[in-house]
Amino acid sequence: MADRRFQLYDTTLRDGTQQEGLAPTVEDKLAVARHLDAFGAGFIEGGWPGAIPRDTEFFRRARTELNLRNAELAAFGATRRPGTLVTTDPQVRALLEAETPVVTLVAKGHTRHVELALRTTLAENLAMIGSTVRHLVRAGRRVFVDAEHYFDGYLANREYALEVVRAAAEAGAEAVVLCDTNGGSLPDGIGAVVADTLTATGARLGIHCHDDSGCAVANTLAAVDAGADHVQGTAHGYGERCGNANLFTVAANLVLKRGRTDVVPAERLREMAETGRAIGELTGVHAHPAAPYVGASAFAHKAGLHASALRVDPDLYQHIDPARVGNAMRTLVSDMGGRSSIELKARELGYEVSAGSEPVARAAARVKELEGRGYSFESADASFELLLLEELAGGGLEHPFEVDAWKVGVEERSGGEVRTEGSVRLRIDGTPLAATGTGNGPVNALDRALHQALDPFFPELARLELADYQVRVLGNGSGSAAAARVLITFTDGRRRWGTVGVDGNTVAASWRALLDAVRYVLLTERGADHRAHRRAAVPAVAAAG
Amino acid sequence: MADRRFQLYDTTLRDGTQQEGLAPTVEDKLAVARHLDAFGAGFIEGGWPGAIPRDTEFFRRARTELNLRNAELAAFGATRRPGTLVTTDPQVRALLEAETPVVTLVAKGHTRHVELALRTTLAENLAMIGSTVRHLVRAGRRVFVDAEHYFDGYLANREYALEVVRAAAEAGAEAVVLCDTNGGSLPDGIGAVVADTLTATGARLGIHCHDDSGCAVANTLAAVDAGADHVQGTAHGYGERCGNANLFTVAANLVLKRGRTDVVPAERLREMAETGRAIGELTGVHAHPAAPYVGASAFAHKAGLHASALRVDPDLYQHIDPARVGNAMRTLVSDMGGRSSIELKARELGYEVSAGSEPVARAAARVKELEGRGYSFESADASFELLLLEELAGGGLEHPFEVDAWKVGVEERSGGEVRTEGSVRLRIDGTPLAATGTGNGPVNALDRALHQALDPFFPELARLELADYQVRVLGNGSGSAAAARVLITFTDGRRRWGTVGVDGNTVAASWRALLDAVRYVLLTERGADHRAHRRAAVPAVAAAG
Repeated sequence: MADRRFQLYDTTLRDGTQQEGLAPTVEDKLAVARHLDAFGAGFIEGGWPGAIPRDTEFFRRARTELNLRNAELAAFGATRRPGTLVTTDPQVRALLEAETPVVTLVAKGHTRHVELALRTTLAENLAMIGSTVRHLVRAGRRVFVDAEHYFDGYLANREYALEVVRAAAEAGAEAVVLCDTNGGSLPDGIGAVVADTLTATGARLGIHCHDDSGCAVANTLAAVDAGADHVQGTAHGYGERCGNANLFTVAANLVLKRGRTDVVPAERLREMAETGRAIGELTGVHAHPAAPYVGASAFAHKAGLHASALRVDPDLYQHIDPARVGNAMRTLVSDMGGRSSIELKARELGYEVSAGSEPVARAAARVKELEGRGYSFESADASFELLLLEELAGGGLEHPFEVDAWKVGVEERSGGEVRTEGSVRLRIDGTPLAATGTGNGPVNALDRALHQALDPFFPELARLELADYQVRVLGNGSGSAAAARVLITFTDGRRRWGTVGVDGNTVAASWRALLDAVRYVLLTERGADHRAHRRAAVPAVAAAG
Repeated sequence: MADRRFQLYDTTLRDGTQQEGLAPTVEDKLAVARHLDAFGAGFIEGGWPGAIPRDTEFFRRARTELNLRNAELAAFGATRRPGTLVTTDPQVRALLEAETPVVTLVAKGHTRHVELALRTTLAENLAMIGSTVRHLVRAGRRVFVDAEHYFDGYLANREYALEVVRAAAEAGAEAVVLCDTNGGSLPDGIGAVVADTLTATGARLGIHCHDDSGCAVANTLAAVDAGADHVQGTAHGYGERCGNANLFTVAANLVLKRGRTDVVPAERLREMAETGRAIGELTGVHAHPAAPYVGASAFAHKAGLHASALRVDPDLYQHIDPARVGNAMRTLVSDMGGRSSIELKARELGYEVSAGSEPVARAAARVKELEGRGYSFESADASFELLLLEELAGGGLEHPFEVDAWKVGVEERSGGEVRTEGSVRLRIDGTPLAATGTGNGPVNALDRALHQALDPFFPELARLELADYQVRVLGNGSGSAAAARVLITFTDGRRRWGTVGVDGNTVAASWRALLDAVRYVLLTERGADHRAHRRAAVPAVAAAG
């Protein structure tokens, strides 16, 4: 009797890489596979050996370097060519040479595709499926068959679609995965076709959806409800066109909303947001901020109405406790949230202030004024905290250094190197101080010049590193001639913060965000004495306001 | 008898603005409303007058400036406060003073929220709904009631939830909109609750979903299938946390997949991608590239397998003809697509080349090599076309000018202005040429220096304008110290193109993309003579390759 545990099958490294802008190296793919394994995916499809050189290389290195603990590695490929012997098919040989425990074959499930794309007969397509599956099973592989265009094929010719499923199952495929390849189906249709296919064939069925109708997750759930117990998806829903079913959303829905605790263990789900973040860093394509469960905004609240209610009970505006998926609630500071959201955010940062106090009112007014000029504090907690500290200090916050001037130059001569030099002129307690740094861009050069000048006086700055840098052109789409908003993410190796700078000049906007980062670290990280002083001082200042 | 046409109700300007990063001005809101009206939304909710000053101002200006042709404007607000008279409630008065034909009231549909958030009795909540609806109806308004937290409330206390619907309907609400406020519901649950509520109350029902389970679109469809005929959503699914139901996806699914031609006219649907683009420009939050129907990648194909099949018939990998929603098919050039996708892309650009030819093979190899170094041609058609032209010319493509050197400097003194100056040294036919430009950032200053130098010789360059500019830090998250990929979008006032530049130095990467833009315009836009020459030469060169 075959193993009938629920199968969570990840195809991030194969179908996911069809996404526009996603082109991971072999090294990246190995690292992504390790994260998916740790998350609890049962199967990881690594690519198409033989067809894509990068994927052949991936499987070669995977043999010695991957060491999966939980997942089985799958190689993806096609059935043999029409009118040839499976034993001499080079593509099928490449699948065996990948030496994976699992092989997943794509097969055509739609008569029109057999005729137009494969250019063979309907009977030969069935023979290709049968002989290829048998050949791989005999070689000791677990075999899955992806029935491509199944749902459209079923509507065009139900009998033939069912024949494809039967041919695969009878030849020994462990599951036949019904694919909504063009992504146009809706949940009711998916559910009905899966149920009928299950009744008519008795085969173990899987589901593979695309999001072209915005229903990939719901379609996947409909298939599971109808009896499929093998689910394919990708991290963050990466994939061609509108993407594949988002594996994270599907897994969380199945575990938390359907009680399918066999999909991934609850303790792995608690790592999901971190898994998603790590994969986003590796691929360079981060989760959409609004992505369910793992997105940066997934539990972020802005509305004043909500902010007030959330002070009473966070569950009033959350469908689950964000900790169950490794995420956290965030309050977004904006002019819409008013004093309640400023108070909530300040408390999140550790300040005991009340919405009715004068410093909170002034902070709310300044946020409103600055957001009107293009600032956004929602992703810039450190800049917001500086603003709050300024108001708590009644406008008299003292910074450990002052800036007199800065400049940066970039130059390239034909055949020569690009040179970038940044210079800063500062004052510490009235004493002038100048330094220069070179770098690979204006921000980097100015960052180095600041470190050069300040690190001898403030050793704690040495830990400060820029982690990410985003420029957003504001205004009416007039490109480089408009104002710029720069968001800088920085880290001390353990935590991350964000700062924001806005200026008509893009480099000046970067400089303002950079300066906030340095000032933030100096004001909040200067050792326990300073911190204790600050924390103790805050309630008193707030109460006095 | 009330009007029972299907109601498409947009709340982009109210619930949509809860989205992280979205803070439109009054001017922006008026412009967005005009686009939504032209698209065919039946109702446009403009905001909460009285509660948010920007929204009060919006409704004041809307009276004289908006002139909606199709939609009715709705003001959003709450029922009267507990234990007060509706006639003296200032918030209710502000709703009337907005002078909109429609008012939408939010009411609590969940006992726990009545008790914890409103802090009143269940009976008083019903009285608040009844008296506020009656007051507004008497004042001549069409009234909708949003039953907040309805689905969770129904599960907690079905009878009370139904009472809320009855109270609203009996007082004269035209439709009661069932809200999945926390977004945690799944389609089967939504469908069952809507069906039962319809049977139990007989009220006209609407649906308002959030995407916290990734099912907002499917949930909305399930509600419509169960009998709801008023649908709320937002452009691009803007909204708090994971966003609201995406109005574009919902409308297209209803029209194209359910045959509900009364939702929006088919000819308006053909403008949908353009409507989405225009709204994205106004809010600064563009559609996710993978967004169904309207996303830039929604009909983009990368896989070699797909590229080959698409040469046979585009419908093989598309769920609908993209023209029906105003979008278009795109071929993505990458190392995964191989020669087939280079051929497809080249044909899309107007070049008669074949996958088997030598220039296509060389172009494929160069794309592969450059993508390995961080380039991405998927959004940089103009850079790809330059690369292709280079290979079609056998590596001997001549540019109308050469670059000897460039530099840029940015400087700020305390209390002074930020100054940016860019300089270029070029040669045209061996004659040296130098120019300087100032701007509000390095790219802008270099762009002006190039125009300064080249416009007198190439007047066609005067039309070239930068439209957008994106920097992406490549590599391992090491921030400003890693390589940068810059994508530049430029326009001649009619069309848009993209170029890409990659360099360890961010400004140098921008310079490379900028140079490609100028070279592209000079090579392809130098009047009919040059163009005719190029087009004619291409097949010959390709055939010779």
